[in-house]
Amino acid sequence: MHITVINPNTSAAMTSRIGAAARAAAGPGVEVAAVHPTMGPASIESHYEEALAVPGVLEQIALGDARGTDGYVLACFGDPGLDAAREFASAPVLGIAEAAMHAATMVGRSFSVVTTLTRTVGRAEDLVQRYGFERACRSILASDIPVLDLEDDRVQEELTALSRHAVHHDGADVIVLGCAGMASLQAAIADAVGVPVVDGVVAAVGFVTALARAGVTTSRRSEYARPPRKEMSGLLAGFALA
Amino acid sequence: MHITVINPNTSAAMTSRIGAAARAAAGPGVEVAAVHPTMGPASIESHYEEALAVPGVLEQIALGDARGTDGYVLACFGDPGLDAAREFASAPVLGIAEAAMHAATMVGRSFSVVTTLTRTVGRAEDLVQRYGFERACRSILASDIPVLDLEDDRVQEELTALSRHAVHHDGADVIVLGCAGMASLQAAIADAVGVPVVDGVVAAVGFVTALARAGVTTSRRSEYARPPRKEMSGLLAGFALA
Amino acid sequence: MHITVINPNTSAAMTSRIGAAARAAAGPGVEVAAVHPTMGPASIESHYEEALAVPGVLEQIALGDARGTDGYVLACFGDPGLDAAREFASAPVLGIAEAAMHAATMVGRSFSVVTTLTRTVGRAEDLVQRYGFERACRSILASDIPVLDLEDDRVQEELTALSRHAVHHDGADVIVLGCAGMASLQAAIADAVGVPVVDGVVAAVGFVTALARAGVTTSRRSEYARPPRKEMSGLLAGFALA
Amino acid sequence: MHITVINPNTSAAMTSRIGAAARAAAGPGVEVAAVHPTMGPASIESHYEEALAVPGVLEQIALGDARGTDGYVLACFGDPGLDAAREFASAPVLGIAEAAMHAATMVGRSFSVVTTLTRTVGRAEDLVQRYGFERACRSILASDIPVLDLEDDRVQEELTALSRHAVHHDGADVIVLGCAGMASLQAAIADAVGVPVVDGVVAAVGFVTALARAGVTTSRRSEYARPPRKEMSGLLAGFALA
Amino acid sequence: MHITVINPNTSAAMTSRIGAAARAAAGPGVEVAAVHPTMGPASIESHYEEALAVPGVLEQIALGDARGTDGYVLACFGDPGLDAAREFASAPVLGIAEAAMHAATMVGRSFSVVTTLTRTVGRAEDLVQRYGFERACRSILASDIPVLDLEDDRVQEELTALSRHAVHHDGADVIVLGCAGMASLQAAIADAVGVPVVDGVVAAVGFVTALARAGVTTSRRSEYARPPRKEMSGLLAGFALA
Amino acid sequence: MHITVINPNTSAAMTSRIGAAARAAAGPGVEVAAVHPTMGPASIESHYEEALAVPGVLEQIALGDARGTDGYVLACFGDPGLDAAREFASAPVLGIAEAAMHAATMVGRSFSVVTTLTRTVGRAEDLVQRYGFERACRSILASDIPVLDLEDDRVQEELTALSRHAVHHDGADVIVLGCAGMASLQAAIADAVGVPVVDGVVAAVGFVTALARAGVTTSRRSEYARPPRKEMSGLLAGFALA
Repeated sequence: MHITVINPNTSAAMTSRIGAAARAAAGPGVEVAAVHPTMGPASIESHYEEALAVPGVLEQIALGDARGTDGYVLACFGDPGLDAAREFASAPVLGIAEAAMHAATMVGRSFSVVTTLTRTVGRAEDLVQRYGFERACRSILASDIPVLDLEDDRVQEELTALSRHAVHHDGADVIVLGCAGMASLQAAIADAVGVPVVDGVVAAVGFVTALARAGVTTSRRSEYARPPRKEMSGLLAGFALA
Repeated sequence: MHITVINPNTSAAMTSRIGAAARAAAGPGVEVAAVHPTMGPASIESHYEEALAVPGVLEQIALGDARGTDGYVLACFGDPGLDAAREFASAPVLGIAEAAMHAATMVGRSFSVVTTLTRTVGRAEDLVQRYGFERACRSILASDIPVLDLEDDRVQEELTALSRHAVHHDGADVIVLGCAGMASLQAAIADAVGVPVVDGVVAAVGFVTALARAGVTTSRRSEYARPPRKEMSGLLAGFALA
Repeated sequence: MHITVINPNTSAAMTSRIGAAARAAAGPGVEVAAVHPTMGPASIESHYEEALAVPGVLEQIALGDARGTDGYVLACFGDPGLDAAREFASAPVLGIAEAAMHAATMVGRSFSVVTTLTRTVGRAEDLVQRYGFERACRSILASDIPVLDLEDDRVQEELTALSRHAVHHDGADVIVLGCAGMASLQAAIADAVGVPVVDGVVAAVGFVTALARAGVTTSRRSEYARPPRKEMSGLLAGFALA
Repeated sequence: MHITVINPNTSAAMTSRIGAAARAAAGPGVEVAAVHPTMGPASIESHYEEALAVPGVLEQIALGDARGTDGYVLACFGDPGLDAAREFASAPVLGIAEAAMHAATMVGRSFSVVTTLTRTVGRAEDLVQRYGFERACRSILASDIPVLDLEDDRVQEELTALSRHAVHHDGADVIVLGCAGMASLQAAIADAVGVPVVDGVVAAVGFVTALARAGVTTSRRSEYARPPRKEMSGLLAGFALA
Repeated sequence: MHITVINPNTSAAMTSRIGAAARAAAGPGVEVAAVHPTMGPASIESHYEEALAVPGVLEQIALGDARGTDGYVLACFGDPGLDAAREFASAPVLGIAEAAMHAATMVGRSFSVVTTLTRTVGRAEDLVQRYGFERACRSILASDIPVLDLEDDRVQEELTALSRHAVHHDGADVIVLGCAGMASLQAAIADAVGVPVVDGVVAAVGFVTALARAGVTTSRRSEYARPPRKEMSGLLAGFALA
Repeated sequence: MHITVINPNTSAAMTSRIGAAARAAAGPGVEVAAVHPTMGPASIESHYEEALAVPGVLEQIALGDARGTDGYVLACFGDPGLDAAREFASAPVLGIAEAAMHAATMVGRSFSVVTTLTRTVGRAEDLVQRYGFERACRSILASDIPVLDLEDDRVQEELTALSRHAVHHDGADVIVLGCAGMASLQAAIADAVGVPVVDGVVAAVGFVTALARAGVTTSRRSEYARPPRKEMSGLLAGFALA
């Protein structure tokens, strides 16, 4: 079984860390390819950047389909381009926010998200709503640590403090890590706070493997049917479908 | 990895079929035990029967914990006793309605449930609401075939007709099978109707394996903390916790 | 008119107090029987205990039907077994959480629940959702006083403090008492806090009397039709329906 | 115990019928006064008429308070002026739509409303939403029989047909009668359709009696505090509070 | 284009200020008439007063229609009589709460309302719900300054403080002014707090002009069809429709 | 006042028609520029195409800001890139689905959307949910006429038939045209069906003019603050912010 994990930003270092987390989570017989786009922003912390990241994600899906992929993971907590990816990919696609939120509701009645910048909270709220978890989500707490600074020493401390606040003040049973670059902190925060902590990359690899093994893929009825052929012009002309 | 699949009714034949479906779905390195209670109803088609099935489910969890279990599946579409099981079990617990509905929303925008008796539709509606899928669920269609008659010849035909109605009339992208005894029909209905068909036993085995592999189990914060010791009397005195 | 009030736990002292509250609330011409199960937990403070209390509740309904009952009250704030009781009983059934929440919305725009253990808050949230009062319910505040300690001196003080917090901080117009054993505190808290305080036993006796007098009982259409006959085995074999 | 039932329109014949239904529903020791305003529309079938009916309702509450009233019923299915009445009255106030919808959810999982003119359906939808019953309400079906023609022979037949449609097509467990003038049809429709049929006048008299007996009245915290004294001018100058 | 702005209370001074704000907001070619009723309360701070203000609002609509009006604005934040006005008026009608909330969601993800008396918060909550903005509205904060004292010096300071709390504590992107008499404070609060501040009179004049220019008026299908002719008696007999 | 209307697809003919509709709707003193991207798909009928259209939309906003724009309209019913546009633009931005749905709820209690391809219905549902109109929206009906075939003769007939179905079967008070290319049909469908018909281009031009005239623009608090400077690579390197 081949799983392709797409880091939607162009940071190779972050892709490498995401790949390591994904491989550690994969069960026996599951191969993981971790890739990133050749175009777009170095990190995604705004709607603007998300919009400019999606074409590169779609390019990676074309490549993943070409080499044979049984399941895709979009490894950015905004789940950028998820609908377009589902239309376009030949295998099931999960976003890491999607997978993490689903997983959290399976092991607790409620969860909070601890994330990077305050400006991304609205996007996380949209996803909570989209996936149906508005009753389960107790809070979305931002550390205001930029995505590419997640390696800093202070990060674990800050996210642990936010997680504790989520549990004791907001009533969260479970913590969801709100960025693809946080997997390495999962165990330490769980130990410190005493509740389950869910990393989306890990959850998504596990769930998309389960879907692929069950032979269940994206419905081709109507909305997620393959996009129609269409004239495509300018810089993006290469995205025209054959 | 050891997964215990509990058929909450006392039908050994149905347990055997559920076990076969679960084993077929399990990935490499996953062992499945399929069990059923020693007390309670032969099938569950009413709130009354569901209430009387739960003590036997809890007994099976005690046995599962004793022999070492990494994840539990409650294999009845009403997810009977799910909250009690989560409190009591030492490993994560998934209901098959829960797992199937989650899975369905990962491969389509909408789903319908095809199930057994009309009188069980209200329970399914409650679960749709509980899990957050009221926007995704387009309809719950009952065949009025009793649970223990699912082996009849006409079943595949009836459920295929209902599934077709769900897709073409109610706008469902995905079909969810609404009984643990329907797994063997999954492929045939999917072929006939042309959309993904999700069986809850298969989905739950895959998802609970993913949770167990990720080291994520039920939050012990407050609600799902282990139940307090308490005097227990009468027929059920044996359920007092040590 | 004969009303049967079922205390779902096996505490005779609590049953006696509940019976006293129910009789004080009953209007002219209404007789109240206060009963409790012969099996199950001494108090209900977890999903596990709730699950094990329900068979005993159903047994009391069988006895209540046999002696002639015009309306049932389930006198535990988790409304345990309400759906099963409605299927099975020959007269209308109200839970005390249900009745109290309905009553609260008739005399204010919003309410808060003051209850016993924090671990029961999730169940109360589920009931708020089930009955449709998620917009009216402002908070559910737990005192962490166990059900069987409600006779303690400090109880009135603690619950008054929580009620005051609910009114002044959470914006509740009305307080709902979150346990069947709190009726004796109703007047004192109402006096101290200056808003209506609703006890579920009192509310349920009044409302089920109104339903019975109006000749309105549980709909037998489909879901709440009497459960089918079914083989029942093991400890619970006695619950098989004739 | 004194209950005042206010028919918000000025039809004396309808007031008389409503009074008869209310008295038949009242338990021992409950006296019913049925009254109607001295100003306003002969029947209420538009928002315009509802707006013009409310001053007269408030006048009747002033009179009811003056003679001593333990509970009020607003006997028009639009529950006109309910918030204003709650502020102003010295005793609890129930609308008949409110009471009927609450009652319906106590004896079934779902209900439909059968009512008069199509143009009133929006108002009923607003009330369903306000009271929290949007999940329970399956449909609101209009007969397009004007309020003052409800005595016609064809009415029972039409409403029975609509009720049957609600049960068999929309999945309603219970029928709610959507006009104060329909109480006399309750038993016949229930017999014909085989599900409980709830009349709001009957339900409201029973429930407001229960509230009054429990000593629970409208919360005076903030919103429903008595309105402030204020200059009132023109035709309505008489409504200035002393 | 002729816009009629109706101040639903009888304060001429407030009408004059509202008219000034409306005229300042109107684009080229738009004439504004600012009027108030000849009957009813001097200000609206309770449901009681709102109920008594509506007949006078309807009288002003009759006059507005007679002189030719292309769009109406109801200039009180409770949007009193909006449904009745829509039925009755020959041109589109907007409430200022309605317009302000719509506008706020067009320039931010979330808003808070700063308003007058705490007792009016419930009405504002109802309108938030009615217009569909329950996810966007973060808080409704009352200054407890009466409507007719809004000219006081301390008002700007108090409302600025509340607005700052809404932004920094409740997470509002936008502030909505919760009274027709607050337009003069809009710029100062926006400057002080650094987020957009929306005045409902300004928003409503702009939006109703847009509707009128687009040739879109209230749907006459069913609910908002012109009210039927009906006998009207007593003080309000003059409101009978010809 | 300068309004820029962006047709997100690259069809010059459609841009021209949209510009004509926008100019006809603009009030005195409002200049309209109608533009389209230099890159991306010829029409937008899938999530894939929408994703590839957004970079070109953002390029047009950069150009619009450079020449001075007081308000933007995104003239595609999927409101593609709305959040990114709000972050990036120096003036308020409205999508045509957004504007049309808001307008519809101002002139009726309910609306239906008549649109192009069935595969776009899910996107429209998402927008209904996002803007808060899930209670107002009665149906979204697809004609399965491709966007670029809207000039065909049969279009008016098909959309009129769908609109009639929406009104008479689904209970819509208002029809919303679900594509930027339908403005020329507005009057004919309104005449034929007898309810208001709202075109999003017209509504958006009117509303964004009202916002601009009121001096209200996108909140810069947090989420919609200008995107951070960031390295941008590959094909899209030109989108890096200075």
